[in-house]
Amino acid sequence: MTASEIANAVARGKMSALDATEAALARIKQRDTLLNSFTDVTADRARAKARAIDADIAAGKTVGPLAGVPFAVKNLFDVAGLPTRAGSKINRDLAPSQRDATLIERLEAAGAVLVGALNMGEYAYDFTGENVHDGPSRNPHDITRMAGGSSGGSGSAVGGALVPIALGSDTNGSIRVPSSFCGIFGLKPTYGRLSRARSFPFVASLDHLGPFARSVTDLALAYDAMQGPDADDAACTTTRGLEPTTPLLANPVSDLRIAIAGGHFQKNLFPEAVEAVSRIAKALGATRVVDVPEASRARAAAYVITTTEGASLHLDRLRKRPNDFDPAVRDRLIAGAMVPAPLVDRAQKFRRWYRAQLAEIFKSVDVLIAPATPCTAPKLGQVNFNLDGVEFPVRANIGIHTQPISFIGLPVVAVPVPLEPLPIGVQIIAAPWREDIALRVAHALEKMGVVAAPSPKGF
Amino acid sequence: MTASEIANAVARGKMSALDATEAALARIKQRDTLLNSFTDVTADRARAKARAIDADIAAGKTVGPLAGVPFAVKNLFDVAGLPTRAGSKINRDLAPSQRDATLIERLEAAGAVLVGALNMGEYAYDFTGENVHDGPSRNPHDITRMAGGSSGGSGSAVGGALVPIALGSDTNGSIRVPSSFCGIFGLKPTYGRLSRARSFPFVASLDHLGPFARSVTDLALAYDAMQGPDADDAACTTTRGLEPTTPLLANPVSDLRIAIAGGHFQKNLFPEAVEAVSRIAKALGATRVVDVPEASRARAAAYVITTTEGASLHLDRLRKRPNDFDPAVRDRLIAGAMVPAPLVDRAQKFRRWYRAQLAEIFKSVDVLIAPATPCTAPKLGQVNFNLDGVEFPVRANIGIHTQPISFIGLPVVAVPVPLEPLPIGVQIIAAPWREDIALRVAHALEKMGVVAAPSPKGF
Repeated sequence: MTASEIANAVARGKMSALDATEAALARIKQRDTLLNSFTDVTADRARAKARAIDADIAAGKTVGPLAGVPFAVKNLFDVAGLPTRAGSKINRDLAPSQRDATLIERLEAAGAVLVGALNMGEYAYDFTGENVHDGPSRNPHDITRMAGGSSGGSGSAVGGALVPIALGSDTNGSIRVPSSFCGIFGLKPTYGRLSRARSFPFVASLDHLGPFARSVTDLALAYDAMQGPDADDAACTTTRGLEPTTPLLANPVSDLRIAIAGGHFQKNLFPEAVEAVSRIAKALGATRVVDVPEASRARAAAYVITTTEGASLHLDRLRKRPNDFDPAVRDRLIAGAMVPAPLVDRAQKFRRWYRAQLAEIFKSVDVLIAPATPCTAPKLGQVNFNLDGVEFPVRANIGIHTQPISFIGLPVVAVPVPLEPLPIGVQIIAAPWREDIALRVAHALEKMGVVAAPSPKGF
Repeated sequence: MTASEIANAVARGKMSALDATEAALARIKQRDTLLNSFTDVTADRARAKARAIDADIAAGKTVGPLAGVPFAVKNLFDVAGLPTRAGSKINRDLAPSQRDATLIERLEAAGAVLVGALNMGEYAYDFTGENVHDGPSRNPHDITRMAGGSSGGSGSAVGGALVPIALGSDTNGSIRVPSSFCGIFGLKPTYGRLSRARSFPFVASLDHLGPFARSVTDLALAYDAMQGPDADDAACTTTRGLEPTTPLLANPVSDLRIAIAGGHFQKNLFPEAVEAVSRIAKALGATRVVDVPEASRARAAAYVITTTEGASLHLDRLRKRPNDFDPAVRDRLIAGAMVPAPLVDRAQKFRRWYRAQLAEIFKSVDVLIAPATPCTAPKLGQVNFNLDGVEFPVRANIGIHTQPISFIGLPVVAVPVPLEPLPIGVQIIAAPWREDIALRVAHALEKMGVVAAPSPKGF
């Protein structure tokens, strides 16, 4: 059942929130030994919350639009009573959080029921969903394959239909990559749109939080419940375009100017990715190709900023507990710790230039279409792949098409094209603060049957 | 004659703008062979401008508040027809500027007459006013001593009474230091207050432009003529507190809460600096000492940001023309080019914390008093000095008390205490956008006779 189906059934008394919760807990118990998407199951808390909703319904009170909907969060969100591990071993020694992250509070205020915390790449510095401490999140369509990262557990849990909604974070692609590999919808909102208060950071100027779901309606419902400024996140202040997107989904998209991202975004692709973009473009009648200038450089600049800000964040831990890191993550951070500062300054200057270029493009375009990943889910442990005839390391290049977009904080809905044997995602990219447009286009594609979250078949 | 005296005389027809201009040109010709403050004298342009003003007056037109007032600018301001050398050898190969800097345009719109461009430390990375290409700017009270830097020519030209007003820039102290050594008034406004459009930069997040003068009224007149947002400087957007300050100067200061900056600002001082601060505090009846937490660390962070952003700015020149730099400046920039980026990230994070601390202080304080320099002007070429019993390099430590203030962009009027044999400056520091308060306090001190620009006696 989708989130909206559950919420409808619960609100109408056709199903209790407790039953919906127990069903999710049972699915987790049954399937997650294979998927490995959960690191914590908050069963007691979930049951208490579900009972409270059922009591409200019994008392005739109005319940929220997500009443009784089970959800889970990447384990970098603060959950009261749990240490915020952020995929690391080191953080498990932290004191349990005193208070939930803002986005959890907002989803629960809408009636949703938190059932647990999800596996992720260590400190979110990851594109594969593999975690040396907790084991890899597995792909629900082939458990020998990657779920994608760093929000691997989020992709796996929603792709595996354990929960209809999950939250994740995206710094360079960590929502869009697992969406693509696991065949689900993911929303990376505009930078600054959704509060990051009480979540464990990675790169302040690139970190976004957002939802995953198996339908666009569910994605929009979750997003709408979480929207709005938050004094606890300095970047989350805007009131621009702050309207519920769910009522807009059915609006036609024929008025929108839709273009295909060219240049960088048409290279470095496996045939599956080319096919997926082509299907989307055809369905939308998009033929115009717009070059995004210097997108490859944008990706390089995103890496420079990521590795150095990441190193700054972890400097004390690198000094004190080097052996408690995943060695590969540690070495990336140590490399970042030694990058000369003028390179970062230049990356930031370039970022301003690049942002202006995209702003110019969005004067004549409403939506850009681009691949989410160069390929479908690689095998767990796969080290290299071949892009346009050259061998590249897999991990570092999975985000080749997501990084140039998040670099300047554009809103993106990743939509799943249900290819066989494995799904793959496409980015529906809009101008800043226009999540509504990206969601509308995703919904139109869903209605046309071009995009859909395939049923898990890996187990 | 002060600027306001000249402007009054010109406006009333008691003196022609051309006579005022010729007098300045004659003083420059006579005295600047010793002072070495000018690198370019724009005599033809000045005469043309002066004649135009005289024609306006003859035609009965209203003239601006600085009609006929000669001024000069640090040679990092664009002056139409001159290459913007910024104290360097390398920049002399640049094409001549097409258009004056915004601040020149605004002063000239108020009737002031540009008579030339002024000597400065190479690329403004300097506290001494010594320039290996153009020779040192000399101190007007003792030509064997430093004028201070990097706006050395500005200090020397106004301190030597060649012109009543000059413009300079201040990244870490480059207006306040020459003000102190040359015994004149200098205003480093709030970061973002005065447009930097069409000036050669040094450190984008620390660069300020501002005026020098021999009286507070002149300083306020110049400042008022230059205030206001400018679309050509992304940092210069505020409309807060945008009122003319000149009419406010006579307001009493007895209502202001004035405190002495403690901790860092009461250490590392020669007896002259202690005496100067003490005189100011006594005149204002200030006895409360307020500790500015982590001011020493603020200075270190300012240096980290300066050296790395400076290196970023000059990276291509360092690669292509290393031998055309002052070797000492080049080596500081090369060092900056190798500073690891996470240190800068941490400096910026600290900066936000430090800014909040100062904001807290300014809830109970209107003005902070602090030394401008630890000493009076050192000898030209002097390498070391002794602070609290330890030998330190002079150049790197002249700004020890200015850097923690400009680091967060607070407005400061440097006021000259006319000690014998050499003057020394004190910083009158206000909360952001409250230049008016700092100017009022400076004016009150001037009326009390505690501060004044001494007549040049070095030549």
